[in-house]
Amino acid sequence: MSAAKDAKTIKHYWEDLTPGRTIELGSVHVERDEVLAFAGRYDPQPFHLDDAAAAQSIFGRLAASGWHTCSMAMGLMVRNFLSESSSQGSPGLEKLQWLKPVYPGDTLTLRQRIIESRPLRSRPDVGLVRTIWEMFNQHGEQVLMMDGYGLFGRRTPGAPAPEAGD
Amino acid sequence: MSAAKDAKTIKHYWEDLTPGRTIELGSVHVERDEVLAFAGRYDPQPFHLDDAAAAQSIFGRLAASGWHTCSMAMGLMVRNFLSESSSQGSPGLEKLQWLKPVYPGDTLTLRQRIIESRPLRSRPDVGLVRTIWEMFNQHGEQVLMMDGYGLFGRRTPGAPAPEAGD
Repeated sequence: MSAAKDAKTIKHYWEDLTPGRTIELGSVHVERDEVLAFAGRYDPQPFHLDDAAAAQSIFGRLAASGWHTCSMAMGLMVRNFLSESSSQGSPGLEKLQWLKPVYPGDTLTLRQRIIESRPLRSRPDVGLVRTIWEMFNQHGEQVLMMDGYGLFGRRTPGAPAPEAGD
Repeated sequence: MSAAKDAKTIKHYWEDLTPGRTIELGSVHVERDEVLAFAGRYDPQPFHLDDAAAAQSIFGRLAASGWHTCSMAMGLMVRNFLSESSSQGSPGLEKLQWLKPVYPGDTLTLRQRIIESRPLRSRPDVGLVRTIWEMFNQHGEQVLMMDGYGLFGRRTPGAPAPEAGD
């Protein structure tokens, strides 16, 4: 648990993140200036930076970097959920799909669905949660799917493991 | 193919990206100011923003957002490879692993290894490539693994498919 987040501010511990639970994570508007700034720094492909090039690409018009889309999803995840949780980071994802292009002017809405949960044998104070993230645009089209893991502090630590195992 | 990238500037077509091929993609230095700026915008968790909070977290000291690490990898991929390729974007990843923390002051080196390649039946001018991305820090420790897909224009389009299939 971090110094900046004491027990009083934590609403979501590992025990609360039970399989089947769905949590709405709010919306973000995609700003053209930010699409260009992100792409210029991290993904300077012509279809993310130049209207004329994008018009001739598979995207049809200027589209956001897929990494920008993931980063916007993470912003919602942190501000509307992880900031009030016992989150301790993530080891990674099982899958990531960019399903539709994301365009400046879009409004993207995120939700997460818990699909698995288990304690960590190696760290009795921490549990692992597997979550599906689904992001939709204002037309109801799914633009992003992520299937990934999160580590969360437990409200009540388990017994220490007799041997290491994770 | 984008308007900004004509055939003269393309060195890497789908046909060139054969399984087993490894391509070095250069290095990037992790700047503290950028770690803070990225986290402030997209991943405002205390261990990415605050030294004291990070010292008490699993990371031990201020660490970059995993999405920032992915974005830095993409920057190298684009500047040192995709910009001279017939890249047409990506449908996603099979796996993403954040293996070690990334810290301000680190120097990260990226390489890719092609592991699969096949034509797209639905688009005879495009092929799919599956690639492992591996990023290492200055101590030789692997910090990131991604296993993902890229779409690339073909130098010589195949025959149109008799039916759709992809």
